[in-house]
Amino acid sequence: MTKKELVDNIFRKQSFLCVGLDTDLKKIPQHLLQEDDPIFAFNKAIIDATAPYCVAYKPNLAFYECFGIKGWMAFEKTVAYIKTHYPDQFIIADAKRGDIGNTSAMYARCFFEQGGVDSLTVAPYMGEDSVTPFLSYEGKWVILLALTSNKGSHDFQLTESAEGGERLFEKVLRISQQWADDERMMYVVGATQGKLFEDIRKIVPEHFLLVPGVGAQGGSLEEVCRYGMTPECGLLVNSSRGIIYADTTERFAEVAGEKARELQQQMAAELAKKMAC
Amino acid sequence: MTKKELVDNIFRKQSFLCVGLDTDLKKIPQHLLQEDDPIFAFNKAIIDATAPYCVAYKPNLAFYECFGIKGWMAFEKTVAYIKTHYPDQFIIADAKRGDIGNTSAMYARCFFEQGGVDSLTVAPYMGEDSVTPFLSYEGKWVILLALTSNKGSHDFQLTESAEGGERLFEKVLRISQQWADDERMMYVVGATQGKLFEDIRKIVPEHFLLVPGVGAQGGSLEEVCRYGMTPECGLLVNSSRGIIYADTTERFAEVAGEKARELQQQMAAELAKKMAC
Repeated sequence: MTKKELVDNIFRKQSFLCVGLDTDLKKIPQHLLQEDDPIFAFNKAIIDATAPYCVAYKPNLAFYECFGIKGWMAFEKTVAYIKTHYPDQFIIADAKRGDIGNTSAMYARCFFEQGGVDSLTVAPYMGEDSVTPFLSYEGKWVILLALTSNKGSHDFQLTESAEGGERLFEKVLRISQQWADDERMMYVVGATQGKLFEDIRKIVPEHFLLVPGVGAQGGSLEEVCRYGMTPECGLLVNSSRGIIYADTTERFAEVAGEKARELQQQMAAELAKKMAC
Repeated sequence: MTKKELVDNIFRKQSFLCVGLDTDLKKIPQHLLQEDDPIFAFNKAIIDATAPYCVAYKPNLAFYECFGIKGWMAFEKTVAYIKTHYPDQFIIADAKRGDIGNTSAMYARCFFEQGGVDSLTVAPYMGEDSVTPFLSYEGKWVILLALTSNKGSHDFQLTESAEGGERLFEKVLRISQQWADDERMMYVVGATQGKLFEDIRKIVPEHFLLVPGVGAQGGSLEEVCRYGMTPECGLLVNSSRGIIYADTTERFAEVAGEKARELQQQMAAELAKKMAC
């Protein structure tokens, strides 16, 4: 998917919501456990209920790998289902990979050639040659970790460098722009980072940011938009647990759809605010 | 496996060799492609040929994930085969994972409960709460990326901080010691880093280091030992391509065994040198 197509989808649907498919057998409604493939059955119902209100899905690979072969089958079926029934959805494999060149090349083959997803989250610690193998696929995106939503983000990402006090996440943003532009790369920035979005926008004024941490992790949508939104929107805000586990009865999908719709309406209001500026 | 058991294995076998199972269908001998599970058939032959000369195996997850469900089956069979036939081998899942707490907990479940490996490589970028979920499994190890073997290691890992010029990899070594001691944590340090092993040993004098990059990537075993070896050895030196793809005919396993034996003999000499000091 191109950046223009993504932006068009966002304005058409008045939503920049990404639904995180962190599907955990221990948390899904118990009646689904009788299905042949409970993970896929859950995802399918969630996707059908939320698709009108979101522009992206983000299956978190940990939740699929955890169930070994069955998990991988569920992942592959989920991606195929989205591509067939909702081809305008942007699919993010949240895998946080990153390894030496030949290994990253294998991961790229895995997710982009066989998996068919649009993008992959990648960790920057190992530098350029761990990231560039993902950039050789036309129309596919790298979403690089910059400033994450968790408490541990303070351990290393905020470390100031001896050269001019640049923080590590700022260096990641600056250096990685030499590897790809805003048509091929996005950045993960946690919703819990508040005003730091202003600093981020000074370095990457045009890039899309994938923003986890609204909802269960305590980030504020309004704050993210105030400091992070661009004229092209420039945000994909993810919600996982707040949508997919909002209800654990037989009404789970319906309630997930309602929660997604609530977020979509807040997002429409934020887009309108921005456009009015 | 405890640290003492690992050290005992090293001195008994006079080897600190880890064989990297980066098994690529495009590189294995063509006659194996007729097998039901070519990846496992290759691994089994390599393991049987090299087990006398090494103390650890490191399947690189990228190479298994790349083949989806078949790849995962081959990975699971490989781990089970090693555990059954060579229970004194230390098994490293080279996955370079690391995510927010609940996701890392899923990965930990995946690899330690279901996968049955001894250890997992983890990326430090997301900090403490992305690493600690892996530390709650008795007898299991985290192998944290510190200073990697690739060219991109220079992009961020060597960045000096404003506080006292500490480099990022040094901060990772220092801070992560608050999370676990040398009985539960090792560090990845690339063989290509030469004299930097001296600086590393000032911060982690007792920890085991997992050292990739000897062979195909150009690192020197002799240099790694001179600067990195401790009285308990403290090193697991990995070789992947230099062993498993040394020959691509029907003699591949025999030649892999010879290559492993050559390295083992060099390692025995290095251990003798150290013990003579």
